[in-house]
Amino acid sequence: MERKLRMGMVGGGIGSFIGPVHRIAASIDNKIELVSGAFSSSKEKSFLSGKNLYLNPDRIYSDYIEMFSKEQHIHSDNRIDFVSIVTPNNSHYEIIMKALDSGFHVVCDKPMTFNSQQAIEVEKKVNETKKLFCLTHNYTGYPMVKEAKDIIAKNQLGNIRKIVVEYPQGWLATKVENNAPVWRTNPKIAGISSCIGDIGTHCENLVEYITGLQIVELCADLSSFVEDRELDDDGSVLLRFNNGAKGILWASQIAVGQENGLNIRIFGEFASIAWRQENPNYLQIDYLDKPREIRTAASSFVGEISMNSTRIPAGHPEGFLEAFANVYKNFANELSDLISGEKLPVHKEYDYPKVQDGVRGMKFLEAVVKSSDNRNQWVKIS
Amino acid sequence: MERKLRMGMVGGGIGSFIGPVHRIAASIDNKIELVSGAFSSSKEKSFLSGKNLYLNPDRIYSDYIEMFSKEQHIHSDNRIDFVSIVTPNNSHYEIIMKALDSGFHVVCDKPMTFNSQQAIEVEKKVNETKKLFCLTHNYTGYPMVKEAKDIIAKNQLGNIRKIVVEYPQGWLATKVENNAPVWRTNPKIAGISSCIGDIGTHCENLVEYITGLQIVELCADLSSFVEDRELDDDGSVLLRFNNGAKGILWASQIAVGQENGLNIRIFGEFASIAWRQENPNYLQIDYLDKPREIRTAASSFVGEISMNSTRIPAGHPEGFLEAFANVYKNFANELSDLISGEKLPVHKEYDYPKVQDGVRGMKFLEAVVKSSDNRNQWVKIS
Amino acid sequence: MERKLRMGMVGGGIGSFIGPVHRIAASIDNKIELVSGAFSSSKEKSFLSGKNLYLNPDRIYSDYIEMFSKEQHIHSDNRIDFVSIVTPNNSHYEIIMKALDSGFHVVCDKPMTFNSQQAIEVEKKVNETKKLFCLTHNYTGYPMVKEAKDIIAKNQLGNIRKIVVEYPQGWLATKVENNAPVWRTNPKIAGISSCIGDIGTHCENLVEYITGLQIVELCADLSSFVEDRELDDDGSVLLRFNNGAKGILWASQIAVGQENGLNIRIFGEFASIAWRQENPNYLQIDYLDKPREIRTAASSFVGEISMNSTRIPAGHPEGFLEAFANVYKNFANELSDLISGEKLPVHKEYDYPKVQDGVRGMKFLEAVVKSSDNRNQWVKIS
Amino acid sequence: MERKLRMGMVGGGIGSFIGPVHRIAASIDNKIELVSGAFSSSKEKSFLSGKNLYLNPDRIYSDYIEMFSKEQHIHSDNRIDFVSIVTPNNSHYEIIMKALDSGFHVVCDKPMTFNSQQAIEVEKKVNETKKLFCLTHNYTGYPMVKEAKDIIAKNQLGNIRKIVVEYPQGWLATKVENNAPVWRTNPKIAGISSCIGDIGTHCENLVEYITGLQIVELCADLSSFVEDRELDDDGSVLLRFNNGAKGILWASQIAVGQENGLNIRIFGEFASIAWRQENPNYLQIDYLDKPREIRTAASSFVGEISMNSTRIPAGHPEGFLEAFANVYKNFANELSDLISGEKLPVHKEYDYPKVQDGVRGMKFLEAVVKSSDNRNQWVKIS
Repeated sequence: MERKLRMGMVGGGIGSFIGPVHRIAASIDNKIELVSGAFSSSKEKSFLSGKNLYLNPDRIYSDYIEMFSKEQHIHSDNRIDFVSIVTPNNSHYEIIMKALDSGFHVVCDKPMTFNSQQAIEVEKKVNETKKLFCLTHNYTGYPMVKEAKDIIAKNQLGNIRKIVVEYPQGWLATKVENNAPVWRTNPKIAGISSCIGDIGTHCENLVEYITGLQIVELCADLSSFVEDRELDDDGSVLLRFNNGAKGILWASQIAVGQENGLNIRIFGEFASIAWRQENPNYLQIDYLDKPREIRTAASSFVGEISMNSTRIPAGHPEGFLEAFANVYKNFANELSDLISGEKLPVHKEYDYPKVQDGVRGMKFLEAVVKSSDNRNQWVKIS
Repeated sequence: MERKLRMGMVGGGIGSFIGPVHRIAASIDNKIELVSGAFSSSKEKSFLSGKNLYLNPDRIYSDYIEMFSKEQHIHSDNRIDFVSIVTPNNSHYEIIMKALDSGFHVVCDKPMTFNSQQAIEVEKKVNETKKLFCLTHNYTGYPMVKEAKDIIAKNQLGNIRKIVVEYPQGWLATKVENNAPVWRTNPKIAGISSCIGDIGTHCENLVEYITGLQIVELCADLSSFVEDRELDDDGSVLLRFNNGAKGILWASQIAVGQENGLNIRIFGEFASIAWRQENPNYLQIDYLDKPREIRTAASSFVGEISMNSTRIPAGHPEGFLEAFANVYKNFANELSDLISGEKLPVHKEYDYPKVQDGVRGMKFLEAVVKSSDNRNQWVKIS
Repeated sequence: MERKLRMGMVGGGIGSFIGPVHRIAASIDNKIELVSGAFSSSKEKSFLSGKNLYLNPDRIYSDYIEMFSKEQHIHSDNRIDFVSIVTPNNSHYEIIMKALDSGFHVVCDKPMTFNSQQAIEVEKKVNETKKLFCLTHNYTGYPMVKEAKDIIAKNQLGNIRKIVVEYPQGWLATKVENNAPVWRTNPKIAGISSCIGDIGTHCENLVEYITGLQIVELCADLSSFVEDRELDDDGSVLLRFNNGAKGILWASQIAVGQENGLNIRIFGEFASIAWRQENPNYLQIDYLDKPREIRTAASSFVGEISMNSTRIPAGHPEGFLEAFANVYKNFANELSDLISGEKLPVHKEYDYPKVQDGVRGMKFLEAVVKSSDNRNQWVKIS
Repeated sequence: MERKLRMGMVGGGIGSFIGPVHRIAASIDNKIELVSGAFSSSKEKSFLSGKNLYLNPDRIYSDYIEMFSKEQHIHSDNRIDFVSIVTPNNSHYEIIMKALDSGFHVVCDKPMTFNSQQAIEVEKKVNETKKLFCLTHNYTGYPMVKEAKDIIAKNQLGNIRKIVVEYPQGWLATKVENNAPVWRTNPKIAGISSCIGDIGTHCENLVEYITGLQIVELCADLSSFVEDRELDDDGSVLLRFNNGAKGILWASQIAVGQENGLNIRIFGEFASIAWRQENPNYLQIDYLDKPREIRTAASSFVGEISMNSTRIPAGHPEGFLEAFANVYKNFANELSDLISGEKLPVHKEYDYPKVQDGVRGMKFLEAVVKSSDNRNQWVKIS
């Protein structure tokens, strides 16, 4: 590409946590520039947000409808290439559909939609419009997650037998809703689940990404430990995979003292791997026939895929933002190639979460809630 | 006591793993001496074993029946005070019953019996004979496990909400039965379960010991991953506790590279604790209102109960054998007091696993197998 | 500021490791934009590098002399505000002096100069020109390093007694010079030292930054373990500080398997702290009167200074690039305030490494080499 | 051997820390029994101590002179084989000399003597009397220390270049002498050094044991940080080894929060190893050409020597007492063989610290103090 890709953002105005994350992630590799946005449902806040970002005031909009409509008529030398959607869950569907219909490629924060029906419609729309769609399941962007995936793809674990994935947090251990509105626990905004919807789906996505397996059946037990909370703040799920592997997935928002303890262990016939999000530059591998091994990101002992996902030498930690940036980078690579007419070799694929991941996530989530609601019976995922 | 307690051992002859463990554990605190034994079902092996232990040949026996019978007729100045039973699971019941009937106190390796029916009968016999009974659920002997129990007893966690306990091992990841007989996977010796019977019950006992809670309902999914294996080598269990807490218990013998990864995390309203058997001298505590804390065994920051369970200053690690010795030490304290007519203050109790723990373990195990066999339905524990 | 600060870069063209690091660090907080550069001593490479960065070709220069000269004549609405110098050690002095004389503020990679004489002249020039000068001793940018400094500034350690700081690397454990030129071990480019000059000075800077103390005397033992290497690849130094504290500083480039193991431990009268660069989001604090504490970056348990140096919630690791970005951010804050005429409250200071740090570093380095060359005698630092 | 070895103890009465450690260590492997003792300089306390240990009152003595004299006249079927000396430093010399002259083999707590002159005389006496002498430098008993030694003996590190060994403790960080007498800081009992004498010598012994190298020159800086303390409570030492390796040794008793942080890292041409006493069952190995490896005690990945020094399967931690027991075990093996006339194969040796280690330790200690007293000049060790 002779130029940077041009991004427009919906949501992410002043006070947002995830907006700046997306902007930093998009900018780190110098392939994308933010040129326009509708940053808030408040017109004033949107303009102030855009001004703080040094945007051209002509490209700051009152809402996404205005934004898409006006951007469509900007000359292609200047028009945004794609939209980044960082609003709460309940608004994703309409914005995505409109963006795709308006001819823009889309990056969207997870979860993709409010329910699986919407997810399926989004998938259909993506297929129809042939636009690129990226869902920012950011944890798959970590270099050592990619190393894990690579190791498994090379069959170095043999048949996978058991998987344990967990994501404990503690920020909802008390009735924080008393102090400030928390949309994660508000069913009108968050949907049918808080804990599993927000972080359980990260577990699901991480497992399926690394292993290439699919969850086919599950038994879930959700809880709301804090009084008067409308949605789950904790959940435990037994899993069965399409290769016969068994698994456990648990997530919690009431695990006092836990920050973002996403953690996965995968046990195969010949070897096992373990990875922790909070110390992400290490991958532990155990073997039947040799001692435990610790591989470090960017070292000469990791594969090409992982190596290409790091920017600095081994021993200089990269973190959450860089992992998030890898999602944007790989999306940007495909979009650049699409625009410039280049192609990856047939056997390769652009490595970022796509619309199918969003559909899987919503189906998983609905199965979990169905199981838990239905006296914790086993439920199949279609 | 003016003298050491006298122990007779059943099982634990040449080649045994657990026999030497019991003997070391019994001897470390210099309160118990081994004076007699029936160490093997082979008379020759029993005698050779006893000789290697420098026992008086008159006190080495061909089998436990002879042993109990002859020891009964030895003068009380010399007779054994108690029997330590370290044979495989399937023989425990008969030996225990005979020992109690012969007037001896009993220490028995876990699991206590072959099934819950036997367990209940043992409990009844213990109550009838008024003999002491100690079940060596050794992990409860670790000082920082006792510290955890103490912290919870003082209500420093508030209401307990979520518990995750696990015990991964990897030694049965391949068909080791091809090389040598493995009684753990032989239903005739091990009973209805291998993985949950051997190590899942440790999880159950540890949870109930530390928290004082009881598991009241569970949903289990057991597997035999290695071909032609007759019993489970992996299991995952969802738990519900009598206070409303939820939990996960999993154990595995096919987790490649795992040694004895017993690990427990308990999340309460105000604080959480985490402990790992493989690095047992540390206890991690998280709080709502202050940073993570790491307490170390024998430091000035642990409570009296934990402190009394250590022998050397902080920073000099004590391990598995010392934890095991704590079980024997506390049993010996009660037995000494019983013999000498001393009494603990009313409000205290001698801290070691007793016959009720054995009954709980068997009921738990049977519930797990029942759930798994019955299409993974939820099962209540009486 | 109504606009981003404009940066011109000297060095950092295609193939450079540190150039991209500076560019990412400068851009992460959206306060600085790269607008011009002389990226290489090769004109062609400079232009290709600038083009890859999507720069306006008019602002890509053949060398820094042309760059400074032409940029001086660009209108102040568009002219660069400061120069970022990322060339090898031996060229820093001339570029810095020229940049300051041309009226530009300066950010410079460390070490600042080739020797202390040059360093003193740079300091004089900075004082004369009243331009800002930032030396990118990036490790001081880590949030938990700032937390450590803050804790000590609040006297929570009491009088500091003992400091141990180390920086082991392993990349020069073999004769890598056989495969490719390595300027770090070439005295014409690196100066009088490789190991201590490159990474030992990071230790020195980190210690003095965190503690506010100064090294006043030292005894050093440098080695070149790899055959025919002209400069040191390992060094150990005993330290004495101006408050009477004692210390050890060691660094190595031949420590097989070590990546960037920068690690500092500071022992005071009442408490001690420990921090590790490879897992930088944790700070361990030990106390006389309570258990070990682990503080995590961005948690509610860290102070304001540390908190202001993080971008994302606790448990989402930030790394090397974000720490580096903190140096640029704090420099940018001062420069913005200078340009816009704003002022910090008198009692505060802009927290980034300045020219004095560069002078200290060169004096330290020369003292180390002098000690080692002079039969490892003790040497005072003026 | 047809019988256990018979041990008599000097020192270690009621209230002693190290006495029980020696008794447990001696007893764990069931090769040694305590049969007599002079446990205290107070006759009453000695008798009470012996009674608490269930000893035959005839074998409890008022002092070591009486003990040696009377034991010499006991029939060889019952007489002690060896003496274990666990008194403070200043009394070792006389007791050792007397024990050897009385025909007893000796185990002695470290440091061996009060000064190197005494050490040399002990060495001469051991050689004259041909009695066995064991110095309980217990840290060399850890299985993974033996694994490290084994790895180096097999030249898997190549030429050793750099060694860093440290032993921080914090128990003397305050003026604890105000509350109770502390013989470690009393020059009349402890000798010329507290910190280096007590724990620095453990570092020296560990380094020389693992590597097989000798320290030939050093430069030391000792401090007494706590007011009015007569001996050092902290020390840092630069080391040079007989193969050209460089090293750092530091120890401290004022490192707040540290317990027994003995820690060693050894960097060779091809590989490096790291071991920590507080988590002793792991050995970290780094290689030039493959990822970091973690070996665990008793696993199938450790060598025969290490394996023979463990008692229970991998993942069940052994600790300080078991390591200490390995010293006694290996001493007992040699003594048993000596008594029974058996011989090890010529190429093997009994692996425990001997009189030469004691001489080395005293020479090292004197060199450290000499260097520190003499304006921190370099001092050679003969």
